[in-house]
Amino acid sequence: MSSARPDGRHVFLAAAINGAGWSRAAARWPGTRWNRFNDVAHYREAAEIARRGVLDAVFVSDHPALSSFGLEGGPPHSLDPIPLFAALAASVPDIGFVLTASTTYNSPYNLARRLATLDAISGGRLVWNAVSSFNPDVAANFGAAPLPPRPERYRRADEFLRVVKELWLSWDAPVGPAPAGPLWDASSARVLDHHGEFFDVRGPLNVPVGPQGHPVISQAGASESGLDFAARHAEIVYASLAGAAAARAFRDDVRRRAAAHGRDPDHLRFVPGLHVVVAPTRAEAERRHEAVRGARDEEELIARFRAAHLPENDLTRHVGPDTVLDPAWFPTEEREGTATGHLKGIAELVAEEELTLRRLVRRVEGGHRLVVGTAEDVAVAILEWWEGGLADGFHLQLPILNEDLTTFVDEVVPILRAAGAVPRAYDGSTIRERLGLPDPRPVPATVG
Amino acid sequence: MSSARPDGRHVFLAAAINGAGWSRAAARWPGTRWNRFNDVAHYREAAEIARRGVLDAVFVSDHPALSSFGLEGGPPHSLDPIPLFAALAASVPDIGFVLTASTTYNSPYNLARRLATLDAISGGRLVWNAVSSFNPDVAANFGAAPLPPRPERYRRADEFLRVVKELWLSWDAPVGPAPAGPLWDASSARVLDHHGEFFDVRGPLNVPVGPQGHPVISQAGASESGLDFAARHAEIVYASLAGAAAARAFRDDVRRRAAAHGRDPDHLRFVPGLHVVVAPTRAEAERRHEAVRGARDEEELIARFRAAHLPENDLTRHVGPDTVLDPAWFPTEEREGTATGHLKGIAELVAEEELTLRRLVRRVEGGHRLVVGTAEDVAVAILEWWEGGLADGFHLQLPILNEDLTTFVDEVVPILRAAGAVPRAYDGSTIRERLGLPDPRPVPATVG
Repeated sequence: MSSARPDGRHVFLAAAINGAGWSRAAARWPGTRWNRFNDVAHYREAAEIARRGVLDAVFVSDHPALSSFGLEGGPPHSLDPIPLFAALAASVPDIGFVLTASTTYNSPYNLARRLATLDAISGGRLVWNAVSSFNPDVAANFGAAPLPPRPERYRRADEFLRVVKELWLSWDAPVGPAPAGPLWDASSARVLDHHGEFFDVRGPLNVPVGPQGHPVISQAGASESGLDFAARHAEIVYASLAGAAAARAFRDDVRRRAAAHGRDPDHLRFVPGLHVVVAPTRAEAERRHEAVRGARDEEELIARFRAAHLPENDLTRHVGPDTVLDPAWFPTEEREGTATGHLKGIAELVAEEELTLRRLVRRVEGGHRLVVGTAEDVAVAILEWWEGGLADGFHLQLPILNEDLTTFVDEVVPILRAAGAVPRAYDGSTIRERLGLPDPRPVPATVG
Repeated sequence: MSSARPDGRHVFLAAAINGAGWSRAAARWPGTRWNRFNDVAHYREAAEIARRGVLDAVFVSDHPALSSFGLEGGPPHSLDPIPLFAALAASVPDIGFVLTASTTYNSPYNLARRLATLDAISGGRLVWNAVSSFNPDVAANFGAAPLPPRPERYRRADEFLRVVKELWLSWDAPVGPAPAGPLWDASSARVLDHHGEFFDVRGPLNVPVGPQGHPVISQAGASESGLDFAARHAEIVYASLAGAAAARAFRDDVRRRAAAHGRDPDHLRFVPGLHVVVAPTRAEAERRHEAVRGARDEEELIARFRAAHLPENDLTRHVGPDTVLDPAWFPTEEREGTATGHLKGIAELVAEEELTLRRLVRRVEGGHRLVVGTAEDVAVAILEWWEGGLADGFHLQLPILNEDLTTFVDEVVPILRAAGAVPRAYDGSTIRERLGLPDPRPVPATVG
């Protein structure tokens, strides 16, 4: 198994470190404290474990609202990612940070400045996952107006990104020794005077151009509007993709859209989600999978999956655990108030392969690809898509933190390393350099 | 010189660490780097020096705009205080953080969450200096609308504070072992359903009640609206006060206003600004003062002060450096687009003492009390006001960072310590406990 890709890049790996992990059972898992979601030491430990594995980044999703999820399993989103990652950046070297923040409920100047500060503090280790909020519980914390419809939210997101990127490059403070005259002049600090549909922003930003030009932009939405936004702005595309054919089609589609917007498609990195449940044997991994889903056995696991994802109607009433599934049974239309990608990921996988509920439940989690197996199984799953050009890396979703992160680093990473797919040490570069992405600063005009 | 106060409290000392210090000459001061305003290591060093002196806190003022100040001396406000202080909290134990953030250009949910996160990360070391933005350059970064008039800004600030404080106490997540039933229930996470003139916020906050209940609230505005806001919300009152009589009158006034709002006036701490220029002798301190003001000599220092603060008119045309000043010559009315306190501080001092421009220029800086002298002079100035009950502490303004902070810690602190006015070590308490302020959590109802 040898797999260095012709482009010379390694598998980009970012580990989600939200709270106690995605498992609802995580809060009460043996040997852990239920309320560690609110303890910075828990996240610092996660970042240190990730760094020990020479992973590229840690990652948090985010909603600024208290989710009722927590009644059962601890809140998935508590500490605000900006101060949280600033604290981790000061404590843990090398590791990158994929930070989720909303374009719907922030102002461009404040967010541009906070992210530029974090990028400066971390020495160029920041990726911003720019999301358009789809959750009505979030909307209610930011005004009386209901959540704007998706197309309006994405028009706002597009303008937000254009403003933020201009702010990030608006002040070329000199580096090195102090210049002889004023410390900067008007031409090095450019006023934007932006006046758009949603924002009026004068600028310039009061944080100078950062160590990697500006943070890397990541995007996660799978709706039509979301894909167009990805094509315009995303450098990392995060998606819910469970099947290989779907992954290839998605990648081709977004690359085509990017080209249509005049971008070089090779400046996009595809980093889908990957859920992993690892154990020494496949049978043990399946038992762990049931346990982290809070199910007593496989039958309960299937029943829960069915209740959550398969609509109860005339067509589906007689489906048993071993009935081959029809993709038409799974709804995929875009709906307000919910993320589009999760359901699509399931439907696409069912369209692609002949699957029963018993098989499907082991293959997909929250619309993402799921691997339940040994460390070797997980490494093979990663290398398959990476070598096949379906993915440039993965956002790892681990059920129990920090236990499953430790297992990944100790068991899976050595296999990837032996395959030449991940590096043995950090080389001090920015996360933009690690991704092989171009510097966004305009090339200075040559004189003469 | 022995001076432990009857209330058992020590002198509260917070050192401003904005950029390279308040001096416009700081950016080019011998032995320093001009662009350290953007280097987290510079701030970490400042926090470490402050901690070595067992100071209570470091402090940053803030405007989210690039000031033209920087053309001459480096920008006073660059890195955003939220990620900056989060990074420092992760690196430097014990020291507190006085963080300035605007109620005019943030949303209550986001700011409440970011500050609660920082308070959790730091273990209860956060003070929020809540300001109403008065700067049109800031307004232009947040929309097409001009800066709202001061009374509207303060109505917004009042509602903002009421919402934020309610959010901060909205979720009593259990501590200790996991409870037997759900991890929390609806009664422990309270919906606000706030609907006001400026904000609609449902809540609850997704960060639980913090280590000190909530961050300590500080306030700095000196306008009528600002004083009313202080009386309603401030636990620390930061003011521009140069004369002792003015300080006493101010304190009495704000205490009276607080009582009128039903608050215990003993729950307010008065922590005015104090500019210090220290050198081994008074003559050397005066030369340093001229140098940090970028003046060649005393005459140039006086000329600059005059140009900045004394209006040129029929009454003032014939004023020389040694003419005794008339307070009527200094304008004190509130104006839009400028902070009220600075001019008031000068006028009050002139009303209180017979002063010439030559004397005045050594007594006041930016409306704040200024001491130019030896370490002993500075210590005496601090103890005078503290023992006299005029101030509970000082926000120290130092011209050259980190040089003058080092001098303060090495030369002034030992004198204050010998006087019993400051502690020799941290005792692990929150900054609220160090200030002797009450816990804001409602006392739980006793059962039976």
